[in-house]
Amino acid sequence: MAEPAAVDLIRAKRDGGTLSDADIRWLIDAYTRGAVADEQMSAMAMAIFFRGLSAAELRTWTDAMIDTGQRLDLSAVPAPTVDKHSTGGVGDKVSLILAPLVAACGVAVPQLSGRGLGHTGGTLDKLEAIPGWRAGLSGREFVHLLSTVGAVICAAGDDLAPADRKLYALRDVTGTVESIPLIASSIMSKKIAEGTSALVLDVKVGSGAFMREIGAARELAATMVRLGTESGVRTVALLTAMDVPLGRAVGNAVEVDEAVQVLRGGGPGDVVEVTLALAREMLALAGLDPSQTAHDPARALADGRALATYRAMIAGQGGDPDAPLPGAAHSRVVTAPVAGWLRRLDALAVGVAGWRLGAGRARKEDPVSAGAGVICLVKPGERVELGQPLLELRTDEPDRFGKAIDALEGGIEIGPQAPPARPAVLERIA
Amino acid sequence: MAEPAAVDLIRAKRDGGTLSDADIRWLIDAYTRGAVADEQMSAMAMAIFFRGLSAAELRTWTDAMIDTGQRLDLSAVPAPTVDKHSTGGVGDKVSLILAPLVAACGVAVPQLSGRGLGHTGGTLDKLEAIPGWRAGLSGREFVHLLSTVGAVICAAGDDLAPADRKLYALRDVTGTVESIPLIASSIMSKKIAEGTSALVLDVKVGSGAFMREIGAARELAATMVRLGTESGVRTVALLTAMDVPLGRAVGNAVEVDEAVQVLRGGGPGDVVEVTLALAREMLALAGLDPSQTAHDPARALADGRALATYRAMIAGQGGDPDAPLPGAAHSRVVTAPVAGWLRRLDALAVGVAGWRLGAGRARKEDPVSAGAGVICLVKPGERVELGQPLLELRTDEPDRFGKAIDALEGGIEIGPQAPPARPAVLERIA
Repeated sequence: MAEPAAVDLIRAKRDGGTLSDADIRWLIDAYTRGAVADEQMSAMAMAIFFRGLSAAELRTWTDAMIDTGQRLDLSAVPAPTVDKHSTGGVGDKVSLILAPLVAACGVAVPQLSGRGLGHTGGTLDKLEAIPGWRAGLSGREFVHLLSTVGAVICAAGDDLAPADRKLYALRDVTGTVESIPLIASSIMSKKIAEGTSALVLDVKVGSGAFMREIGAARELAATMVRLGTESGVRTVALLTAMDVPLGRAVGNAVEVDEAVQVLRGGGPGDVVEVTLALAREMLALAGLDPSQTAHDPARALADGRALATYRAMIAGQGGDPDAPLPGAAHSRVVTAPVAGWLRRLDALAVGVAGWRLGAGRARKEDPVSAGAGVICLVKPGERVELGQPLLELRTDEPDRFGKAIDALEGGIEIGPQAPPARPAVLERIA
Repeated sequence: MAEPAAVDLIRAKRDGGTLSDADIRWLIDAYTRGAVADEQMSAMAMAIFFRGLSAAELRTWTDAMIDTGQRLDLSAVPAPTVDKHSTGGVGDKVSLILAPLVAACGVAVPQLSGRGLGHTGGTLDKLEAIPGWRAGLSGREFVHLLSTVGAVICAAGDDLAPADRKLYALRDVTGTVESIPLIASSIMSKKIAEGTSALVLDVKVGSGAFMREIGAARELAATMVRLGTESGVRTVALLTAMDVPLGRAVGNAVEVDEAVQVLRGGGPGDVVEVTLALAREMLALAGLDPSQTAHDPARALADGRALATYRAMIAGQGGDPDAPLPGAAHSRVVTAPVAGWLRRLDALAVGVAGWRLGAGRARKEDPVSAGAGVICLVKPGERVELGQPLLELRTDEPDRFGKAIDALEGGIEIGPQAPPARPAVLERIA
């Protein structure tokens, strides 16, 4: 058979047609090799933005991305393996708690993670605030730590779905990120290639999330659950709220500190609630009963088992769990302009403020500041007095305060009545 | 003001927004300079394919393309200037007749033309079949010939809307050619930059044309008429039929030969009809009355004035109008498999057959054969007997006959009843 021409495939998708398995496999492979040009793939991505991919096209697309690299083999790990993926939010330090927590309950958590971009933080950036900790592991180290400690959070190797790395970089500069099938295949290709047996997805919904509307979040979650299940990875999704930062700390070192508070049995209620809900799903997918003492994550937080596993996980990757975390040289407090109830603390506004203070990056090659960030001293639903401190802003470069305060403009609302209580976990999609 | 980011403009268009004048001007200029990448522009083109451009956006887009190069100044030409543009068809040799014909009636025709790609021929390729004729002229030669002979058909210089050249090459490989605003701005940017005072558009409709459906052709015509008018170029469009090749000759030398037959007062009726309709529109746009003897194009064909101007035009660009035209080394005849009425002779099928015989090119750097082509010995509406020759195929390379005959498969229909007569000129849009 003759090779298809990229332009013919673009036109077919543009006009609402369906691409064959052979066409998709050729396209992804040829693009990864450089035989299909960036300008052709970006036009295809835009056509997919408008036309979508059928369930069969999406499955082949995702498989083809996986097949550009290697699949990890975790068969040597003695425990069942379950991973978690979050679509990203503000103050989302859940992975740091969840991986050791679930491992302490008897499941191995092989988490290949990423760095932050824009207003959402990256798990690796947070962990790198810990002196000595390193994100890069060899495949052998990865399997060894997974078999002994039971939890590993590390950077994905270059050989894990390399098509996705190239395609994501292209989508980022061509306005083609916001396509549900392309998002789903990007996330799931890496998770399936990672070799996990089961997966829980935390799909964030709200101003600080990638999905602002619950309808789109539901569609993304259902698409990924179907894709995982069809590929032999048992997959469940929770939709969780991201209108307000999760917990009180937004940044890198400050989030590690808050995660450790939760691992010590304390910490903010919303972080605990989301973490336990995800942990129970992960344990159930591994076939364990979270109501049994040995597998009860609430108990593992209370009795120190989760903290012990966390310490082993950090130490296993060269980190010193007892070393003081980096601080920031300067801080400034934002106070309440009126008395009343804090009704709204916008996740996007706080996320952007943290980013402006140095906690996040605009381009993937930029460094981040370990100590910068925002502490939410008050959360929606709490009363404030006139002049009471609401937020503490931290940075190493005091000329950043101005832009951070600008970002908060319109993001804080104080009113005469308490806001309605909102659940942290919104829906479950299986 | 800060420079816009290309990705933000792509996302705005993708989501149905309107681009500002400043954004469009920046984008086109930055793309032409190489500051906006091909993969960004192709994504934008695909977003425009789906979202379109408003009338105001399209006007700015076209202006911005013109402003990447120079506008020709034809103010030194003593006669009124009117040009014609055809969207391209099979056997469309009208320009070769029309330019000298209209010039002979008192109007200067400054026609910057192109080469063929795929199954539609290019006017320059046809003229290059004439020994000695050259397509490239300096700006000074162009104005001189326009002022003396009154008709010039030559290649556009590199400085005429260079953004269009770059953008068209990109669209060609990214499946973004078929967008009405992008087609309209591509055509009109060059015609407006060329400096003509008025313009008649020949928008072809049917199987052998770029626009297969009359609705799309009407929309393209109306878009271009509006764009021209708003830019100060008086513009009218005719929609003309392209289900069947125009005339009997399809190729390069064979079409020059047929054009000369028309200029001598003979030739096929459909070629004469379309040429006269376009000529009358051009003369009227120049303010001349085509019913007056001096400005009557039918008379200028009959009395040899058009032919004399044609000979001067060819000689003015180095061509020898008396030199024999190149032939082809091999010919083969396609005969009627049954007796009856020829009901259909598909323009696309004949165009592709001519292309396969060597008359057209697949890539813009390919050469074309001057002598190759197809002669339609019978046209729809004529009776044929069993075994009667229908088409004569000509080529220099006899191994091309097989592919040409394959291209004709399904393109010829002979039946027991005469087909309905169809007009050559379908609609006028002003």
